[in-house]
Amino acid sequence: ADAAAMTSARERQAQLTKPAGALGLLEDLSVRLAGVFGTDRPHPRGVAVIVAAGDHGVVAEGVSAYPPEVTAAMVAGFTASTPSGMGGAAVNVIARTVGAKVYVADVGVNAELPTHPALENLKVRMGTRNLRLERAMTADETLQAILAGSDLAGRAIAEGADLLVPGEMGIGNTTPASAVTARMLGASVASVTGRGTGVDDATLARKRQVISAALDRDASHAGDPLGVMADLGGLEIAFMLGVMLRAASERRAIVLDGFVEGSAALVGVALAPELRDYLFPAGQCAETGHAAQLAHLGLTPMFDLGLRLGEGTGGVLAAPMLLSAAATLREMQTFAEASVPDRE
Amino acid sequence: ADAAAMTSARERQAQLTKPAGALGLLEDLSVRLAGVFGTDRPHPRGVAVIVAAGDHGVVAEGVSAYPPEVTAAMVAGFTASTPSGMGGAAVNVIARTVGAKVYVADVGVNAELPTHPALENLKVRMGTRNLRLERAMTADETLQAILAGSDLAGRAIAEGADLLVPGEMGIGNTTPASAVTARMLGASVASVTGRGTGVDDATLARKRQVISAALDRDASHAGDPLGVMADLGGLEIAFMLGVMLRAASERRAIVLDGFVEGSAALVGVALAPELRDYLFPAGQCAETGHAAQLAHLGLTPMFDLGLRLGEGTGGVLAAPMLLSAAATLREMQTFAEASVPDRE
Repeated sequence: ADAAAMTSARERQAQLTKPAGALGLLEDLSVRLAGVFGTDRPHPRGVAVIVAAGDHGVVAEGVSAYPPEVTAAMVAGFTASTPSGMGGAAVNVIARTVGAKVYVADVGVNAELPTHPALENLKVRMGTRNLRLERAMTADETLQAILAGSDLAGRAIAEGADLLVPGEMGIGNTTPASAVTARMLGASVASVTGRGTGVDDATLARKRQVISAALDRDASHAGDPLGVMADLGGLEIAFMLGVMLRAASERRAIVLDGFVEGSAALVGVALAPELRDYLFPAGQCAETGHAAQLAHLGLTPMFDLGLRLGEGTGGVLAAPMLLSAAATLREMQTFAEASVPDRE
Repeated sequence: ADAAAMTSARERQAQLTKPAGALGLLEDLSVRLAGVFGTDRPHPRGVAVIVAAGDHGVVAEGVSAYPPEVTAAMVAGFTASTPSGMGGAAVNVIARTVGAKVYVADVGVNAELPTHPALENLKVRMGTRNLRLERAMTADETLQAILAGSDLAGRAIAEGADLLVPGEMGIGNTTPASAVTARMLGASVASVTGRGTGVDDATLARKRQVISAALDRDASHAGDPLGVMADLGGLEIAFMLGVMLRAASERRAIVLDGFVEGSAALVGVALAPELRDYLFPAGQCAETGHAAQLAHLGLTPMFDLGLRLGEGTGGVLAAPMLLSAAATLREMQTFAEASVPDRE
């Protein structure tokens, strides 16, 4: 990030017509956005959410409350024609409300999906392998997924996106997200494994056993982040990593939604520590382990609505706050400009 | 609020394509909005912030970090021509970003303000009297301010507002807000009196002494809410009460910003308990006593950004969340509509 722009932005915030610090976290966010966009008058415009879908071999272990067919059905929902426009899922509806563009990518759904003009067919594989028993992805598959994410993020940026929200849909994907988080943070499985879409106690216990078994099997270590992603991750998680790396490399802000997105971010900052400067966590997600991810990243979320949906929903909800934070730097008058007396 | 619409909305939320409860507080908000708008498909459109300005005789006691001239200067800032449009204050900038309309009213600024087409001259008095020594307002002045708020809210609604954000500007106004809050909640002065725009320890101690003296002087009691408003309140606070009562009576949602707004709401729910159903607290405000107000109202804020600016800024920031919550009920597909398998 641009340290000079951040310094200038911080000085500017102190001159704007409000008591110093009265905009709270919004002031910090505005300074970080100045760093991302390289100016103390940042002007992010377009917001894009890129929803990546993938399936997970580990669902064979019974780790989710929903049948795996839901992944494909939800992808159809993301692109369905409805009376209100394209898509009838939460992310579509919230994106329409705040004016965000929705991109949908099949990076690893375990079904042949009908072609649709709004569905990017970037399928690497029909779902990952069962990570309890073997590596979820090969190194090559992992890279393919990352590059697919990078490419689609590049297109979204070319089409006007300044704030990018990586989102995901994949039944079972909090299991790989927890496994990746446990490995990257060196945290206990129990401390970073929650109920996902809402599993019961017995399923939660099984999910934790499965993740423990995967970690025991797997020889990857946090010093080899791409190895961890391949062994324990998922195709849509690797794809989101690609979105993040591309967005940061093109100096765009990344709005970080929930726990699955957070697992991709942990791998990302291990690969490229500068990525952190481009990450803006949306909400505190209700999933166990999300707080540990944010603590590791050293970043403060904007709200705590108890969301645990994924799809990028929280990230899209947060976009107006980030646009507003940038706008304060860009459009507010200073005490001098407005001839307002400052404090005595 | 419409109980049948709320029941129907709650049932509908359980059928939408997401795990039950996965949208967290957004689901509760959507159900409450169904109650306000009398339908399980609520469609709020326009957002209006009504910023009321007034001065306070109690500033003679040295309770604020800023000189009282700031009130008039900030009103000029709300209507100033800037390269980005009308107004260079935080509320203008955030309202532009999220598409909210800004109304500005002089209900009691202690200066003759230049006329401006966007400034409503609704001045009741050149500021309140010093509440340490005497009643801040007469009963008649209080009613005039309430009616002025009601009238402007009615116009905003006629011009399309479905979400109304009462906002305020008035140097010194956390002092009357704390006095009203202490009286209405029967709370200790220290527990509901904070630093406002950022006063130092000595000023905070003096502010608390002034409020204690006012409470000792004043014979009003919580059972006479309008008496409390007149004795301890402010012109812009009474005006916001009028905005709230009118919005609720026309079945519109009220986005509740910060501590000063909260003091008006306490008086409002004491007058008309149904008002509570129409109130949607935006953020947890950093000012001492705000949490006690929300606990009394039994309402949960949407975020905690550490805002302590007023002007309605937090309320405007929250508007996209409320519009999104309503949109989930209105535009999301059900499991049946989308042919998505529900949980096993």
